[in-house]
Amino acid sequence: MKYLLSFLFITFFSLSLLAQKKSFTLDDVVNGGTNYRSFYPETLASLQWINDDTFSYLQDDTTLVCQSITGSKKKVLTLGELKELTSNYKGQKIPSHQWHNGDVLEFRLPQERLFYKVKDKTSWRITYPEGAANTDLNYAAGRLAYTMDNNLYYATSQEEKIAVSENENPHIINGQTVHRNEFGIHKGTFWSPNGDFLAFYSKDETMVEDYPLVDILARQAKVRMIKYPMAGMSSEEVKVGIYNVANGNTTYLDTGEPKDRYFTNIAWSPDNRFLYIAELNRGQDTMMFNCYNANSGQRIKTLFTETDEEYVEPQNPMVFLPSDPEKFIWQSRRSGYNHLYLYNTNGELIRQLSKGKWEVTSILGFDKADNRGSGKTKLKGLKEKHIYISATKKSHLERHAYAVSIDKEEMRCMTDNEGVHRPQLSPNGHYMLDTWSNTETPLKIDLIKTKEAMTQNLFTAGNPYDGYELGEMKLLEIPSADTSLLLTARMILPPDFDRKKKYPAIIYVYGGPHSQMINQGWLGGVRMWQHYMAQKGFVMFTLDNRGTSYRGADFEQVIHRELGKHEMEDQMKGYEYLTAHAFIDSTRIGVFGWSFGGFMTTSLMTHYPEAFKVGVAGGPVIDWSNYEVMYGERYMDSPADNPKGYSNTTVSHYAKDLKGRLLMIHGAQDPVVVWQHSQKFVRQCVKDGVPLDYFVYPTHEHNVRGQDRVHLMRKITQYFEDFL
Amino acid sequence: MKYLLSFLFITFFSLSLLAQKKSFTLDDVVNGGTNYRSFYPETLASLQWINDDTFSYLQDDTTLVCQSITGSKKKVLTLGELKELTSNYKGQKIPSHQWHNGDVLEFRLPQERLFYKVKDKTSWRITYPEGAANTDLNYAAGRLAYTMDNNLYYATSQEEKIAVSENENPHIINGQTVHRNEFGIHKGTFWSPNGDFLAFYSKDETMVEDYPLVDILARQAKVRMIKYPMAGMSSEEVKVGIYNVANGNTTYLDTGEPKDRYFTNIAWSPDNRFLYIAELNRGQDTMMFNCYNANSGQRIKTLFTETDEEYVEPQNPMVFLPSDPEKFIWQSRRSGYNHLYLYNTNGELIRQLSKGKWEVTSILGFDKADNRGSGKTKLKGLKEKHIYISATKKSHLERHAYAVSIDKEEMRCMTDNEGVHRPQLSPNGHYMLDTWSNTETPLKIDLIKTKEAMTQNLFTAGNPYDGYELGEMKLLEIPSADTSLLLTARMILPPDFDRKKKYPAIIYVYGGPHSQMINQGWLGGVRMWQHYMAQKGFVMFTLDNRGTSYRGADFEQVIHRELGKHEMEDQMKGYEYLTAHAFIDSTRIGVFGWSFGGFMTTSLMTHYPEAFKVGVAGGPVIDWSNYEVMYGERYMDSPADNPKGYSNTTVSHYAKDLKGRLLMIHGAQDPVVVWQHSQKFVRQCVKDGVPLDYFVYPTHEHNVRGQDRVHLMRKITQYFEDFL
Repeated sequence: MKYLLSFLFITFFSLSLLAQKKSFTLDDVVNGGTNYRSFYPETLASLQWINDDTFSYLQDDTTLVCQSITGSKKKVLTLGELKELTSNYKGQKIPSHQWHNGDVLEFRLPQERLFYKVKDKTSWRITYPEGAANTDLNYAAGRLAYTMDNNLYYATSQEEKIAVSENENPHIINGQTVHRNEFGIHKGTFWSPNGDFLAFYSKDETMVEDYPLVDILARQAKVRMIKYPMAGMSSEEVKVGIYNVANGNTTYLDTGEPKDRYFTNIAWSPDNRFLYIAELNRGQDTMMFNCYNANSGQRIKTLFTETDEEYVEPQNPMVFLPSDPEKFIWQSRRSGYNHLYLYNTNGELIRQLSKGKWEVTSILGFDKADNRGSGKTKLKGLKEKHIYISATKKSHLERHAYAVSIDKEEMRCMTDNEGVHRPQLSPNGHYMLDTWSNTETPLKIDLIKTKEAMTQNLFTAGNPYDGYELGEMKLLEIPSADTSLLLTARMILPPDFDRKKKYPAIIYVYGGPHSQMINQGWLGGVRMWQHYMAQKGFVMFTLDNRGTSYRGADFEQVIHRELGKHEMEDQMKGYEYLTAHAFIDSTRIGVFGWSFGGFMTTSLMTHYPEAFKVGVAGGPVIDWSNYEVMYGERYMDSPADNPKGYSNTTVSHYAKDLKGRLLMIHGAQDPVVVWQHSQKFVRQCVKDGVPLDYFVYPTHEHNVRGQDRVHLMRKITQYFEDFL
Repeated sequence: MKYLLSFLFITFFSLSLLAQKKSFTLDDVVNGGTNYRSFYPETLASLQWINDDTFSYLQDDTTLVCQSITGSKKKVLTLGELKELTSNYKGQKIPSHQWHNGDVLEFRLPQERLFYKVKDKTSWRITYPEGAANTDLNYAAGRLAYTMDNNLYYATSQEEKIAVSENENPHIINGQTVHRNEFGIHKGTFWSPNGDFLAFYSKDETMVEDYPLVDILARQAKVRMIKYPMAGMSSEEVKVGIYNVANGNTTYLDTGEPKDRYFTNIAWSPDNRFLYIAELNRGQDTMMFNCYNANSGQRIKTLFTETDEEYVEPQNPMVFLPSDPEKFIWQSRRSGYNHLYLYNTNGELIRQLSKGKWEVTSILGFDKADNRGSGKTKLKGLKEKHIYISATKKSHLERHAYAVSIDKEEMRCMTDNEGVHRPQLSPNGHYMLDTWSNTETPLKIDLIKTKEAMTQNLFTAGNPYDGYELGEMKLLEIPSADTSLLLTARMILPPDFDRKKKYPAIIYVYGGPHSQMINQGWLGGVRMWQHYMAQKGFVMFTLDNRGTSYRGADFEQVIHRELGKHEMEDQMKGYEYLTAHAFIDSTRIGVFGWSFGGFMTTSLMTHYPEAFKVGVAGGPVIDWSNYEVMYGERYMDSPADNPKGYSNTTVSHYAKDLKGRLLMIHGAQDPVVVWQHSQKFVRQCVKDGVPLDYFVYPTHEHNVRGQDRVHLMRKITQYFEDFL
């Protein structure tokens, strides 16, 4: 009898456990936590087009499958087969790969690019030395560019190392990204289409001040100097070299004076003869779109110039029409929103392809010239009929695919379902593989026939949070401080929300340009830590203030010369909205942000000391004169030109006003927002007799990544639990 | 009627306020706080002997008064008169000064030594350039040595700058202290008695590793490298030069190999012909007391050698008997306690002057040869009868003055009152000015006639804490962990202590060698912040564990090769004693310490994670292999010789065991316990997923000084209030 009771009791207890929804641990919700990835929605991994009719993806991570648009599938390669081709890969899943010419698979392996021709099962490889980085393949020519230390090389299937540059000055860096990755720059090498020429950035940092990073893991702490040009100070000088494979000579483009400019969005002409560069002055208010002769290095012409009172920010290279090497698409925000402009290579605007109070977010591709094309285009000889884009036309919170007519004012949406679509266009433009989500849909993949906009579902992911206690998420609209428009905000309520109770709330803020914290995709763009905090009884709130992305130039550029000012005004509109709710305890409002969000957090805590009880500011900018030239001067001009703006935005000037509990956190190796920022704020608090809390992650850079991020988020959680 | 009531009420309220004792603010109790100095007991400022019968002191800071031993007083100089002598002094009180030859006053002013002959009111000066440091005067010769950057100079009343050394290598440093101020070294220049020769240290740091300190107040953070030799690594090489004023030549002593040794306790022979040096091997277990010819630099002889299994630590230069240039006093702990040994210059021990289980803490002086001297000394020709010392004979918690017979085993105490005496002996040894205090007596100054030990009170300070609420302080004795003896501890109870209540307690710990936290002087040696915390309801507790000072070699040297081990055992005896009290809430015990005390705090928190709820560790040593050679290797040997000891004492190895809340604090410019220490602990906590709190004082060195110290102590106070 005793046993039976125990048994019954245990059974009942287990059942009730099963029925009860689960709470998160930090390892579930923090990127870097042991369980974080298990909440990624399932998908067709490595999905990509092979040719006009077929695409491929991974099955169980170990089998590469191709599937025709009609649905027939076959295995292309297994992990085992791949490992027979090379002894150089130890991974447990088929690695990163790409198709070429519809039949050749390229795998990126350590010190090796492996090529596998599916039809005849032959393979070949290009190998390169250990320590190489920034690899860049021209498949047609079979040449792989890479950098070692500060120099540039390339390899072929015959040779491992051919020097493009042999510079002994370690502060002249060839073949790497420049201008601190601003202006859409993310690489330093640019093969001509046929691979006969290699254009590359050559960056001279000799004149740039050093910033010291201290490695405390050494036997005795050691300094590592990085080059860090601060606003108003000497910046790097960039040249563009063109290496001629045939004769081994390098020609540097004759870009003239002043040297202290930005050379952005490099593109080759389809005929390998010309190089196009969007050149920006240091003041960032004038962009000249220039064409250079790749052989001589001479400037041929300026196609057009863009100017702006605040700043011009070219971010996308020109895209030539596949059928016409004399015509290209240029993206510009000159109308107030990012749109497409069709130009010819004389620099004549043919027509503006898209317009309206919304933005093009990317170009997906074109119709391919084929017998389906009408041929009846007004643009004589042009075989493309449409350019396919991703855009915010329906809503700035959504991304949809559109077919935009090249010759007439017409555009058509390809994607029905509300949400965020990430479509991949087939080579001929007849199909899209559309991976999408919305707040109700974790992930779906549809095959869309572009002409008819017919949709067929290929894959539907389950909800990875089934069985977990998630609080209600609301997307909201709140008037901006200048009442010009409605800002987007997001509120997450505790799972057991009771409107009659009073809850503390935490505002998570970023607020800087090039950001959007809220969208209509899965989870509304939220990071799951917010749901974790909601489970702990905090209402979580976020608002995208003016200055953030996808809402046009005016919305963004209002921040110019005084960062934080309008951003804070908008955040306080969110604050007012939030604290107007009866279920919010307005004496217990916290705020948390990192980087620009750390700047915002510290600014909010000091400008509105009565509003916020607790704040956590990570990697914060404290003084924009200690931030870098490219980003900093775009938004703030130089300290000499804008002393008042710099002074007004230096957060340490307001340290004396701080009243709430503020935890400041920094990575000691931060090369982006250097450690000087938060230490200056600490110093000022000490001088002003103001209490402050602080933490440092000694080995981390601008973000605390990996498993250590769990430590960070535990610290932040604890801080709000202790003091909010 | 209404007015009258108000008046009565106000009066009553004011009276009750007056009756109520005051509580402290942090500005009262923190060194650096605006009100801290107002609690210094009053005294006769700048008290010193002028000649055998007269002493001087400051009246109201602005008038220098001399007073004969019979009590008659007269003004010597006013601040106004001093300012008429020089335009170079802006201070509000008579500055630091010293008497010479009974009639000449020397004032230390900026870039100037001003001399003033009282009798004929004449004055003269020696000036020296701005930026000079380490000034060292030979009054007889009228020469003032000083350093500029890394070189050595001297000035006279005629010349401002005569170069002794002109070294261009910035890592060879002349005339400054060496060996990181260990072995009693605190300066780098040593005039011969007649001023014809200047002996000086020359330190070559070329081979010492740099440690980077980062200045974040610069426009862009800048590195300042300091030389920091870590245990087991290459150390500085020190030479001793002798500069001959007559010919401008410098002879370097031929100290031979190995160069990596310690040259300590330099002393001149009275006849200006010989230099004596206590030379210690890098292992610090063998000291050779050597004599060098000052002219040739050749070693004449080794007078004697001291060895010790743990370490030898000479800290006091020889002292010659005034009447006999062939005899000197040597202080040594060779008997287990620091005592006096009379030697002749052949290196023969004449006799041990003092002995017993107590220590000589300083030599005050001698009887002067005069007609009072008996002349009947056994030591033929010797005119001194007594040497006067300060010692711990009565108790290691007290300091008393003793007359020790030079020729027979006899010593006599000069000071009656229990407590800590700081006597100044008159030139002829007939009188003492005895400034003393005990736990009941803030400060008294007595004039003592040494022959009769007769005492006359000159000054009695009032209690600066009258009207303030001070909790009861108890000095306690607690058996050491090895039960070999009784350790001293101190407990401070809250002012409104109620035995029936439960109190949280904070253990303040230092625990390292060369320290004594508790004595029988005023306030028992406590820092007033402890009384501040007692007012907030914390019981404050401190214990001097084995390893601390004034209790002999065994008591100290038990720590050898495993710092912290026995120290912690003893501290835990204190913990047991403390928590055995019914009025102590043993679940709420905190611990706080700085430097070695930060090491102890972190060690205690990690070794006894269940014992301590909250800790604050400032400037902590975390890994002795990151500490400097001189101090570190004395107690730990080198990492190669003692890998287990180093490993056992590396606190980050125990980071994973930390359970309580620990706040670690560091000065970013700390050149003593470099910042690497605490950052390594932070790094390990992050790796181990262990919560930790941290704070940094960006511009501070090993201690947070000045007004900023109030910020520090507020932070520490807040931490205990938040979490204990």
